[in-house]
Amino acid sequence: MLDLKNIEKAYERVKNVVHHTPFSYAPILSQMSGYEVYLKKENLQRTGAFKLRGAFNKIATLVENGKKGGVVAASAGNHAQGVAFSAKYFGIDATIVMPESTPLTKVQGVKEFGATVILQGSNYDEAYAYAVTFAKENHYDFVHPFTDEEVMAGQGTITLEMFEEVEDLDAIVVPVGGGGLISGMSVAAKTLNPEIKMIGVSAEGAPAMKNSYDAKQPLDTTSVRTIADGIAVRDTSPVTLEYILKYVDSFENVCDDEIASAILFLLEKQKVLVEGAGSVGVAALIHGKIDLPEGSKIGIVLSGGNIDVTMLSLIIEKGLMKSARKMKLMVTLIDKPGALQAFTQILTDVDANIVQIGYDRTSIDLEFGDAHVSVALETKGEEHQEQIRQKLKEGGFSFKEEH
Amino acid sequence: MLDLKNIEKAYERVKNVVHHTPFSYAPILSQMSGYEVYLKKENLQRTGAFKLRGAFNKIATLVENGKKGGVVAASAGNHAQGVAFSAKYFGIDATIVMPESTPLTKVQGVKEFGATVILQGSNYDEAYAYAVTFAKENHYDFVHPFTDEEVMAGQGTITLEMFEEVEDLDAIVVPVGGGGLISGMSVAAKTLNPEIKMIGVSAEGAPAMKNSYDAKQPLDTTSVRTIADGIAVRDTSPVTLEYILKYVDSFENVCDDEIASAILFLLEKQKVLVEGAGSVGVAALIHGKIDLPEGSKIGIVLSGGNIDVTMLSLIIEKGLMKSARKMKLMVTLIDKPGALQAFTQILTDVDANIVQIGYDRTSIDLEFGDAHVSVALETKGEEHQEQIRQKLKEGGFSFKEEH
Repeated sequence: MLDLKNIEKAYERVKNVVHHTPFSYAPILSQMSGYEVYLKKENLQRTGAFKLRGAFNKIATLVENGKKGGVVAASAGNHAQGVAFSAKYFGIDATIVMPESTPLTKVQGVKEFGATVILQGSNYDEAYAYAVTFAKENHYDFVHPFTDEEVMAGQGTITLEMFEEVEDLDAIVVPVGGGGLISGMSVAAKTLNPEIKMIGVSAEGAPAMKNSYDAKQPLDTTSVRTIADGIAVRDTSPVTLEYILKYVDSFENVCDDEIASAILFLLEKQKVLVEGAGSVGVAALIHGKIDLPEGSKIGIVLSGGNIDVTMLSLIIEKGLMKSARKMKLMVTLIDKPGALQAFTQILTDVDANIVQIGYDRTSIDLEFGDAHVSVALETKGEEHQEQIRQKLKEGGFSFKEEH
Repeated sequence: MLDLKNIEKAYERVKNVVHHTPFSYAPILSQMSGYEVYLKKENLQRTGAFKLRGAFNKIATLVENGKKGGVVAASAGNHAQGVAFSAKYFGIDATIVMPESTPLTKVQGVKEFGATVILQGSNYDEAYAYAVTFAKENHYDFVHPFTDEEVMAGQGTITLEMFEEVEDLDAIVVPVGGGGLISGMSVAAKTLNPEIKMIGVSAEGAPAMKNSYDAKQPLDTTSVRTIADGIAVRDTSPVTLEYILKYVDSFENVCDDEIASAILFLLEKQKVLVEGAGSVGVAALIHGKIDLPEGSKIGIVLSGGNIDVTMLSLIIEKGLMKSARKMKLMVTLIDKPGALQAFTQILTDVDANIVQIGYDRTSIDLEFGDAHVSVALETKGEEHQEQIRQKLKEGGFSFKEEH
């Protein structure tokens, strides 16, 4: 059974290798929410995520017990990096099994730590099954991403660092996928302060643990789909569920749009890059889903920062649209000289910058003699967009908006 | 004359208000460069930049001297935020003069701190001239962004924080625009350790101070153009130049492409958002412009994080192209059924994901019967791109690449 002692031992093992990440007061979030908000920036952790803590503690205990024959893990993400880094640290072999579709950058990221990569299976579950068999057949030690006491104990060390800096926290908000992070952190937090509230947050597109929490029994899901790939876990672990039912006080879901706006908020206001899974706590906070007495001192774990920049581009785009700083219009013009000029004159008058434009007069849904212009505009907020709509109406233009 | 005592006094004033920002070891940069690299993350400072330190110290000294009548500054950027924040803190009036073209978000950012904003002048110099006159006529105190001892002393407090954590630094790399930051930091650093090397980095598109350093006399430029808007200073201050000539050991320039790749590096590898001006030190490092003995312990100042996300989107795009993770092709096809299919089959075979596609058969430079397809592809690196080129050639397609 996982207890505070395990976690304190884990802290002794990891503390000279993992970064003691900043736990910083967040003035803007505090002002917005009415709470006193601190952010635990595990996105600034080595390998870009908290997963290093659990993997390192697990492998350190294996080495302590003389098990140096090599480790195997199944992961295309943060756990893979944590295992590969830790194995390299102790000079033992690591084999990481990843689904065949894994992007080359993730494969390379793990290879850079000297790990062997096996691409196997068309999804995570197939890769996982292969890894378990592979470990058994070759007498390697399998490092589970969360259903493992030493892994959970490693993740629990985050609580110890948070308490060192802010000893009177009222609540901790933690992203939940498989549940290893919140299990380890809750055991430490509730032992040190039984009054503290532990709040879990999952992605709506990967609700297995949240559903299980509500039903008080392990429920699996048939598929997952969320931009928070780090917590996109399909099946519920009965082991972590037990800790979660015992220690977690409330449990929320956030949707992809809420996650995207939290990523953009953290980037613009906090100047940190946080991945989808790492942003769910802030997503819950800024969308009014954290319900505590006013002035409560809360710590939110930003669990990781490994987000693909291509994905980030899309998120910025969506975020700009959502926050009324970009606007896409499809305008119908009469297809004659001067028509486009009249339209662009209006945009100049209202000080809207064109970032993209397309012109089409062959679309099937156009009347003869009409043309479609599609424009993307940089705008200054809701009020500015309303002004643009107004001016276009006054100018006699018919238009549709894309959302 | 600015000395260590001023800077220590400044530290007493600012330390309970400004964040003691992280000064973190950067394993990847260290491995890449052969130095031991630490990053001072002033992008995580309140208001998103180091400028708060100087502005706060200046206004604190005004208040200590009974000058509570109000302050004026000219800035559309980080200095404006620092002045507005500090004035609000002390409950005195602040007026910020900004060029008329200033984006609304920057105006709002300052207004949120309760400052009055005057939009005046078509560029920074006109806004500055107006602000100086306005301050005189209304008996307000003008807060210069760098030619001011108390402002420089405030910026110098960064050195004290860095030395607290890593006492045996061999060199410090500092972004240079007007020169206030490197002046304050150098006075502190060279007094505490005369052996330390101070290295300045400017943007190639705003080389006034670098030119003046090389010529050992103040030289102005006629215009500035760089994505590092925070250090886009046109004229050289003789005051800061004197400190720079006295204390700075070497001085480098970096171009916009180098700055953009540093921004992307810091985002992807360090998980922090750093603006152009804040990234020049890392740009110089990763492009081989920092010349020190192997193993030197160096601190690089990431001076701020206030970059517009629209600009960030463009930088990510350019960065993806530059690092061979995106590829744009213009392919000539025979305009007949099946031609596009044959082309896309090749892309499928080499596992290149299409992110954008356009088809044109009316372009003036096309032969009759030909069509142009322009595609943007997600690719996995230089090798993958070479494979795509090869397969297209084998398939008999002629194409051009966009860069």
